[in-house]
Amino acid sequence: MTSTSAQHLSDVLAACNTNQDRDLSDLFTLLSQPSISTQNIGVRECAGLVKGMLEQAGLATRLIESSGHPFVYGDYPAPSGAPTILFYGHYDVQPPDPLEAWVSPPFEPTIRNGRIYARGVGDNKGQFFAHIAALRAWHETTGGFPVGVKFLAEGEEECGSPHIEEFVKANVGLLDCDLVYTADGPMLDDDAPTIAYGVRGMVYVELRATGASNDLHSGNWGGLVPNPAWTLTHLLATMFSPEGEILIDGFHDDIIPVSPAGKAAMNRLKLDQQATLASVGVQKLPAPESASYFSRTIERPTCNIAGFTSGYDGVGSKTIIPAEAVVKMDFRLVPDQDPDDILRKIEAHVRTHARDVEIIPMGGMRPSSTPLENRFVPVVRAAVQAGFGADPVEIPIAGGSLPDAVWTKDLGRPSFLVPYANRDEANHSPNENLVLENFYAGIRTSAILLARLATSVE
Amino acid sequence: MTSTSAQHLSDVLAACNTNQDRDLSDLFTLLSQPSISTQNIGVRECAGLVKGMLEQAGLATRLIESSGHPFVYGDYPAPSGAPTILFYGHYDVQPPDPLEAWVSPPFEPTIRNGRIYARGVGDNKGQFFAHIAALRAWHETTGGFPVGVKFLAEGEEECGSPHIEEFVKANVGLLDCDLVYTADGPMLDDDAPTIAYGVRGMVYVELRATGASNDLHSGNWGGLVPNPAWTLTHLLATMFSPEGEILIDGFHDDIIPVSPAGKAAMNRLKLDQQATLASVGVQKLPAPESASYFSRTIERPTCNIAGFTSGYDGVGSKTIIPAEAVVKMDFRLVPDQDPDDILRKIEAHVRTHARDVEIIPMGGMRPSSTPLENRFVPVVRAAVQAGFGADPVEIPIAGGSLPDAVWTKDLGRPSFLVPYANRDEANHSPNENLVLENFYAGIRTSAILLARLATSVE
Repeated sequence: MTSTSAQHLSDVLAACNTNQDRDLSDLFTLLSQPSISTQNIGVRECAGLVKGMLEQAGLATRLIESSGHPFVYGDYPAPSGAPTILFYGHYDVQPPDPLEAWVSPPFEPTIRNGRIYARGVGDNKGQFFAHIAALRAWHETTGGFPVGVKFLAEGEEECGSPHIEEFVKANVGLLDCDLVYTADGPMLDDDAPTIAYGVRGMVYVELRATGASNDLHSGNWGGLVPNPAWTLTHLLATMFSPEGEILIDGFHDDIIPVSPAGKAAMNRLKLDQQATLASVGVQKLPAPESASYFSRTIERPTCNIAGFTSGYDGVGSKTIIPAEAVVKMDFRLVPDQDPDDILRKIEAHVRTHARDVEIIPMGGMRPSSTPLENRFVPVVRAAVQAGFGADPVEIPIAGGSLPDAVWTKDLGRPSFLVPYANRDEANHSPNENLVLENFYAGIRTSAILLARLATSVE
Repeated sequence: MTSTSAQHLSDVLAACNTNQDRDLSDLFTLLSQPSISTQNIGVRECAGLVKGMLEQAGLATRLIESSGHPFVYGDYPAPSGAPTILFYGHYDVQPPDPLEAWVSPPFEPTIRNGRIYARGVGDNKGQFFAHIAALRAWHETTGGFPVGVKFLAEGEEECGSPHIEEFVKANVGLLDCDLVYTADGPMLDDDAPTIAYGVRGMVYVELRATGASNDLHSGNWGGLVPNPAWTLTHLLATMFSPEGEILIDGFHDDIIPVSPAGKAAMNRLKLDQQATLASVGVQKLPAPESASYFSRTIERPTCNIAGFTSGYDGVGSKTIIPAEAVVKMDFRLVPDQDPDDILRKIEAHVRTHARDVEIIPMGGMRPSSTPLENRFVPVVRAAVQAGFGADPVEIPIAGGSLPDAVWTKDLGRPSFLVPYANRDEANHSPNENLVLENFYAGIRTSAILLARLATSVE
């Protein structure tokens, strides 16, 4: 870092410190505005608020309409030779119910015990607003930014981001950048920040088997009509072995190994496995024994039964042959499995083993990964370390699924997932919260990141 | 038959004909008295009515208390050298709901289109009262009976006959007889009466598997915790093959083949299989192809999934690893499988293949059979043929389960199941009904049976 940019950052961080009350007050304004996308409550009003705050932070902004809720977009041109960062976030929130479980009302932000309580404070308003506060500090302190800045907030993330892929593909030029940076989700640890360099993808399918036209007496008809619960049981047994291996032809074909730097990061991960499993009532890992704890969510796909419903589910006994059986399954995918391709392989498998079973595709999401060899990895790592004052836990691939592939595949840029929220943020739950210190550390991290990026190419 | 007994029967049948209006009126009295055993409504009052009618028919009667609803018992000593018949029936009925589905109120018997409509008219009041009407005709016409007569009506059949086994075992002397005769259930055909010489037994179990202490996010936890739906799927696949064979060790050990006369009866059975399957929306029999239609319910046991419940059963997708999975199964048993022994074999199988799965036994019933070689077979067959004016359909073993083994095993006597109700009696359903002509044919059949039995030993 040059002495000028070091001085700039020092001034910016001082401003961040000075601005804490104002930043908190502005976040409260954002939190007081409901923006429940699935219920279409207050979403456009919230988009307007975000747009105004972005403008105040020094970006040229606009709302971009989609067939759903609008995108809020802002940008600032890159100084000559400097890279451009795209911040991504979402301004919509989950519904707040059950209301009676909240200690303070969900849209009346309240501070208790060093935490802000409000719907959306962790997921995602408090996190993307940390970027805005950092940008504002840079702009007010230095009159500009040391790098190009783009900012995109969507209003449909809690609906499953139905338009993000279409939007990114149609706006590759507008969104082009050198890296994408997202603060969302909870940190994995209490004591250290997290960086995830990718996510698993997913395919969701429903399988339906039918037998007779209605439930039948199992005595009178037992042996005479097919039982759809057996049809699905036998089909499922051909898809996934008791030894924990997925048996669908070609399922593993496109898996690419985690890169050497990713492997090294995996090997640095530490966890009290017994305690973690015990926290959810489990004593030992399921088959296969040979798979290490972290390889299970980072390197391996899954074949999960999310629901199996057939016949009688009441108390006591009922002697029927069910007319129908339904199984819901999700398959978590790792790079570079493609959900469309995997769906075709599942369909082919079902056609082979149980011709009459109906397959209902219920969505998919691509896996995504940014290799840890990427040149921005040390930059992001250093900023997070400095912002939070602790070495980050780095995971090559997070177990869950996000539409991160729009950045790594459709935009073709590295993407970094850096959650600012505490592990117990209670996102999607009552009493959602954000530790105040995490909010300020997030602002610092985003501010430092701009400086580090500026000097990364010097 | 001697000329005296032939004259007696002729007089008795003439009396049956003359008595039709009175018999119908008495049946209406019985039907107007609710006797819902599961709800304890009117059961004892109904027992009193039955006792009075039996007395009027010439039997010495009494109520015998149990820890549930009382048994109604009556008898008349056998004339020297004559055999004794035990009639069995039940005076309790199913609950009548849904009430709004009845065209006429369930406890206000009504005749429409040649049928009596009332709760319990088929199941079982109209059927066991046919015996009483026949007995009364004999007693009023001849001053007695040509054979020994015992009559037992229980008031808990619709609760699953929880005390019948205990009662029979404790009263072997009281109930001893030469044959047991039951008119219950619907006939198999519209045009011909039915005789069943036995029933399949049953074992009912619930299997429960648990994983984590609550449903978990399938992305964050996929691969890390056991999925109990998979546990049960894999367990089930070891119990029953896609080829339709039960794979539990020793399950088939105690099966005894249907006797030659039973086989001959099986071979006489006729059915439009395609039409029967099509009536329940099925195109072809399930595996194994080698099993004939009738062997499936007469000679073969079953392994049926009556319910499979785990995880998400709502609309759309939910990405969870279920915390629990529950399967309910019934196994239909053929002679001479023992439900206790089969339960032990199921338990051993589960212990071997899925040690942690909980097995909850939910009742069993022994199979029962009377060989078609029995000396009373031609007697019963001839009576039924004469009473209904058509050759009976004879099935060695009925597919469903009844506590018939109390007669064949505990009492050690042959047992004959001769339904008098029409195929579409709608037992257990709204608008339960009995075709009037079946009621009268049943009275004739029971009356003729006494005469045939008396001469069978001459």
